Amino acid sequence: MQAQLIALDWGTTSLRAYKLAADGVVLEQRALSSGIMQLPKTPRIIHGRECADGFELAFDQACGDWLDAQPDLPVIACGMVGSAQGWREAAYCETPADVANLGKSLQTVISLRGATVHIVPGVIQRSRLPNVMRGEETQVLGVLQQLPAEAGADLLIGLPGSHSKWVEVVDGCITHFDTFMTGEVFAVLSEHSILGRTQQPSSTFEAQAFDRGVQVALSADGELGVLSTVFSARTLGLTGELSPSLQADYLSGLMIGHELAALAAVQRQRRNNPNLPSIVLIGNGQLCARYSRALDACGFARVTLAEQATERGLWQLARAAGLIDSSSR
Amino acid sequence: MQAQLIALDWGTTSLRAYKLAADGVVLEQRALSSGIMQLPKTPRIIHGRECADGFELAFDQACGDWLDAQPDLPVIACGMVGSAQGWREAAYCETPADVANLGKSLQTVISLRGATVHIVPGVIQRSRLPNVMRGEETQVLGVLQQLPAEAGADLLIGLPGSHSKWVEVVDGCITHFDTFMTGEVFAVLSEHSILGRTQQPSSTFEAQAFDRGVQVALSADGELGVLSTVFSARTLGLTGELSPSLQADYLSGLMIGHELAALAAVQRQRRNNPNLPSIVLIGNGQLCARYSRALDACGFARVTLAEQATERGLWQLARAAGLIDSSSR
Repeated sequence: MQAQLIALDWGTTSLRAYKLAADGVVLEQRALSSGIMQLPKTPRIIHGRECADGFELAFDQACGDWLDAQPDLPVIACGMVGSAQGWREAAYCETPADVANLGKSLQTVISLRGATVHIVPGVIQRSRLPNVMRGEETQVLGVLQQLPAEAGADLLIGLPGSHSKWVEVVDGCITHFDTFMTGEVFAVLSEHSILGRTQQPSSTFEAQAFDRGVQVALSADGELGVLSTVFSARTLGLTGELSPSLQADYLSGLMIGHELAALAAVQRQRRNNPNLPSIVLIGNGQLCARYSRALDACGFARVTLAEQATERGLWQLARAAGLIDSSSR
Repeated sequence: MQAQLIALDWGTTSLRAYKLAADGVVLEQRALSSGIMQLPKTPRIIHGRECADGFELAFDQACGDWLDAQPDLPVIACGMVGSAQGWREAAYCETPADVANLGKSLQTVISLRGATVHIVPGVIQRSRLPNVMRGEETQVLGVLQQLPAEAGADLLIGLPGSHSKWVEVVDGCITHFDTFMTGEVFAVLSEHSILGRTQQPSSTFEAQAFDRGVQVALSADGELGVLSTVFSARTLGLTGELSPSLQADYLSGLMIGHELAALAAVQRQRRNNPNLPSIVLIGNGQLCARYSRALDACGFARVTLAEQATERGLWQLARAAGLIDSSSR
C-alpha cells in the first residue's frame, strides 16, 4: 500500500512516528525518546546542510527516510511540539472543539528539507478555572471516530497520565474537561517527600496494596482529603501494617482513588443522574489497568480501552485539513 | 533567678534551647540550626575528650556553658531527637495521652559530660489510619496548662507546619488528632513540579492571591479536590489571570483552603454539631497568620494564637517527671 500521511505524536518526553496508508492503515511506526524536553543535540548533515537544531534533528531521525522516499508526503503532528516551548506555537482552540475546527486551525512550520509540518493546536476551556490540553484532543477525536454518534451523551473519555484528563463530548465536540495532576504529584511525593524515603521498589504490581489505597480514599477516612490520607503511607509503615515494597502501590491507589471519587461525585452532580457515565480509557496499558481497577471500585461499571487513538485522530485531522484525499475515510 | 531546668526543642532542622527558672520563667534562650538532619560534623574537645558525634556536638553548642556553670541542671528534650533517627528512640505513647503518662515515659541518654538528657516520647493514635506526632504533644500540653479546664470540649488545637496537626483534647488528654501534609506537598510541588516553573518569588505576602486560592477551594470548583484544582495555578497563569509572582501564594491559599474545608466538614460530623470549635494555633507566626486568614474564611470564628507553648510544655513534663521541685508551678 502507498503511504499517504506521516503522523507524529510529539510530547514532552517521547516522539512517535506513524506512516499511514489509505483509511489510516498503519504501514510502519517508530518510538523515539526525542520529546521536546529531550531533543538530540549532536549536529548532523540534513538535506546537505549542517544542522544543530534539536527539532530538525529529531524530525529527521523520526521520518527523514520516509520523506527521502516520498518527499511529498504530508506531515501532521500533535502534542507539546505545538506549545510555547515547542517547534512552533499553535494557539489553543477554545471549547467546544471538534475535528472540523481543529482541522482548519493547524499551525505550520517548514523543515530544513522543505517539508511542511502541520501542528495540531491544543484546546483551552475558559471556565472559571481554565483548563488546557495538548495531544489529548487528538486522541479523543480518534476515539470518537470509532464510536456510534449516539454514544457521546453517556460517555466520559479518560486519559490517565502525569496530568490525567477527563473529557466530556457532545455530538463529536469536546465540550468540557477536567485535569488532575495525580500522576505528577505521585511522582514528586515518591521522589522528593518523606513518603519516598521508606518506599522500596517492587518488581511486580502490588494489586492488593493498590486496592487497599483505593478503598481508603472511598472510606470515611478519605473525607479528610488526600493531603491528609497520604500520611498513612508512612504511618502504616511505622506500625508494621504496610511493608516498604507495598507503599508505592498503596500510595498510587490512594491518590487515584481520591481522583476518581471526586470525579464520580462531580459527574453525578453535573449530569443530575445517580448513574455514572460509560468510560473509554486512552493511554499506557499499565496505567489504564490501574485506572480500570479503581474505576470499578468507584462504581463506574462500563469501562473499555481505546486503541490506536492517536494515529486515528491525526488521520481524521489531516483529512479535515485537506492534507489527504477526502475520499479516503 | 536561679536556673532550674534546661529545656530543648530539638526537631529535624532546628534546635532551640531554653534555660528556665522557677515557674518556667525563661532566663535565656537560643536558636541553632542543628536539627537532627543537619547536625554539626567538625570534631571538637568536649569535657576533655575528642568528640565527633553530631548529637553530642549540637548538645554542647546548645547548652554546654549552662551545664559548666550548673552541672546538676536537669535536661529535658522533645521532638525528632526521640525518633528512630534521633539521639535515642523514645517509643510513642498511645492516645489518650496527658502530662502524667507522658511525664513518666521519658527516655534517657547520658551525654559525654555525664548529664542525663530526658527525651519526651511522641504520641501514636492507633486508628485505622494511624497517626503520629513528636514535639507537637509537648506544645499541646503547654497550651492546655494556660487554659481553663472547661475549655477542652469545644477546642481544637492546630499546629501548622510541614505536616500540620489538628489535635482534639478532653480533660487535659490528647484524645484524637489528624495530620495534613499540606506544607510538605506545597514545598515539593513548588520545587519539583511543573507548577514551580512559572512561579516567581514575591518579596511580600500576596494576601489577595492567597485569599483567592482559599475561595477556590471552598467554591464549587473545589469539589474536584486538590489534585485537580492545583492545576489552575498553571492555567490561570497561561491565560494571564494570575501573574508569576502571585502563583506561590495562590497555591498556598488553595492547598490550605482544601485542608481546612475538609477539616471543617469532618469536625462538624464528628461533633454532630454545625458550630465549629474554637481554635488555638501554635507555631511560626507567618504561617499561623496564613492559617488564621483561611480559618476565618472557612467559618472558624474563634481563633487565638498560643505563645511559649513548647517551653511551657517541657516545664510541665519535667515537673510531672519529678525532675524539678514539684512545689514550683
